[in-house]
Amino acid sequence: MRTHLQWKGQMAFEAVGESGHVVRIDAAESVGGTNSGPRPMELVLHGLGGCTSIDIVSILNKMREPMETLHVDIEAERAEDHPKRFTKIHLHYRLTGDGLDEKKVHRAIELSMHKYCSASASLNAELTYSFEINGEKILNQNA
Amino acid sequence: MRTHLQWKGQMAFEAVGESGHVVRIDAAESVGGTNSGPRPMELVLHGLGGCTSIDIVSILNKMREPMETLHVDIEAERAEDHPKRFTKIHLHYRLTGDGLDEKKVHRAIELSMHKYCSASASLNAELTYSFEINGEKILNQNA
Repeated sequence: MRTHLQWKGQMAFEAVGESGHVVRIDAAESVGGTNSGPRPMELVLHGLGGCTSIDIVSILNKMREPMETLHVDIEAERAEDHPKRFTKIHLHYRLTGDGLDEKKVHRAIELSMHKYCSASASLNAELTYSFEINGEKILNQNA
Repeated sequence: MRTHLQWKGQMAFEAVGESGHVVRIDAAESVGGTNSGPRPMELVLHGLGGCTSIDIVSILNKMREPMETLHVDIEAERAEDHPKRFTKIHLHYRLTGDGLDEKKVHRAIELSMHKYCSASASLNAELTYSFEINGEKILNQNA
């Protein structure tokens, strides 16, 4: 895979990969940016969230599970000292759908976390997850 | 840090972090997406590139180095088997600027790679880098 970044002045950049979609990146005003785009570390988490979410949709679709909505809340802890890497990341999956099977949802998340998700496998943080179906919280688990 | 993803149908998602900027994510048509946004693994690399680029701009600015343009080319290798994690990532920094000091540029990249860049420190891939100043290639090095 190849991607490319170009400096656009101050702390702003444009990034583009093989998909051709340009993503603007910027720092906060407090560190000299103009907040014209998301922060780099947000993009890392978006990549993680997008990766596992695509897995979940794909797996539950193959299982013919009636998922209607999916949200993922990600909470990441970072080391206090430089380079302030991600140390712990928790993913909370919120699904709705009439008749969604708890075991199949759990299996889909497990398959993503342990077999398919390229982004989670590329990070050195400790990953944990929980999920809820139709507003009922089910599980907290190490990934 | 907190981020949030919402499924937008098929393989498309919208992600938003604390900066408030919404990032659309989508899979390729070949795997059931509509290519309405970048791939998740592109975003991970964009985060890496943005992180180290902001470092470079910030450090060279403090050093009063006359950088005029900055491009970063990222090439990532992935494992063949699932979960196809990033195994090796090479960053090639291309800078221009009349009178840019090679040693200071090298020092800025080293500081980013070894001290400041949160994204590179959060990835488990082997990182290497090279750079060129005004079209002259200088160095290949493990990060």
